[in-house]
Amino acid sequence: MATNQDCELCAGPGGELLWEDDVCRVVRVGGAEGAAFPGYCRVICRQHVAEMSSLSAGDAHRVMDVVLATERALRTIVEPDKINLASLGNLVPHLHWHVIPRWRDDSHFPAPIWAAAQRNAKPRPAVGGTRLQQALKTELSTLTDTP
Amino acid sequence: MATNQDCELCAGPGGELLWEDDVCRVVRVGGAEGAAFPGYCRVICRQHVAEMSSLSAGDAHRVMDVVLATERALRTIVEPDKINLASLGNLVPHLHWHVIPRWRDDSHFPAPIWAAAQRNAKPRPAVGGTRLQQALKTELSTLTDTP
Repeated sequence: MATNQDCELCAGPGGELLWEDDVCRVVRVGGAEGAAFPGYCRVICRQHVAEMSSLSAGDAHRVMDVVLATERALRTIVEPDKINLASLGNLVPHLHWHVIPRWRDDSHFPAPIWAAAQRNAKPRPAVGGTRLQQALKTELSTLTDTP
Repeated sequence: MATNQDCELCAGPGGELLWEDDVCRVVRVGGAEGAAFPGYCRVICRQHVAEMSSLSAGDAHRVMDVVLATERALRTIVEPDKINLASLGNLVPHLHWHVIPRWRDDSHFPAPIWAAAQRNAKPRPAVGGTRLQQALKTELSTLTDTP
């Protein structure tokens, strides 16, 4: 398993750990981003690679299956108006997916969360890690282990 | 096949068409975005659905395989420092993936392209549709038709 001692996503979980297997883990994003977009998760590859196309086809399918299970869990428990998915990694080139619930009245909608804020949004209820973990477990239990 | 008569990605290709199958198409992005990030492509789902998790597992794998074939084609022909992938759709809720080559000296790096520009970047050579199409064809020929 390739790791990099200078990489923060090799050194630590990168958020509150909700689930993991041999290929990737799901973490809950905290701080201001987590408060603004309750349920915001990241799916972080275990291997230190920068790009999805550097994974084997099987591992890439697995990572995407976990991303989509996370998306389904969020659609079920926070009922957002939209889900945004992104793998950027310009600052931390260790493959990780942003799975971000969006609402029409959130601080940035319809712009991406990395653009300038559009408004002061009213606070939205937080989503506890246990609730997220349970919803994820339900969605991930329907996945097969083979790509 | 679900379509929506008010949707611009149901009504038109959404860019210069490079490749298509029954599930999705790949288009080259033109205009200022295409000029700033030469090789920028979008992979657009044929069905009018907003979210990846609304597709069947097979169609979702197929779309991701095409996204990753596009990523590989770009890595080969434009050799970017990073690839950014995103499915947002807040403005046009018809599933489409951004496949964006990034360079350390581009206008926005390391920020996402939707954030404020970081600098005036010097123009980068354009990438012709034919060259992209050929590289895509090579990458897509290695995919099997089954998910």
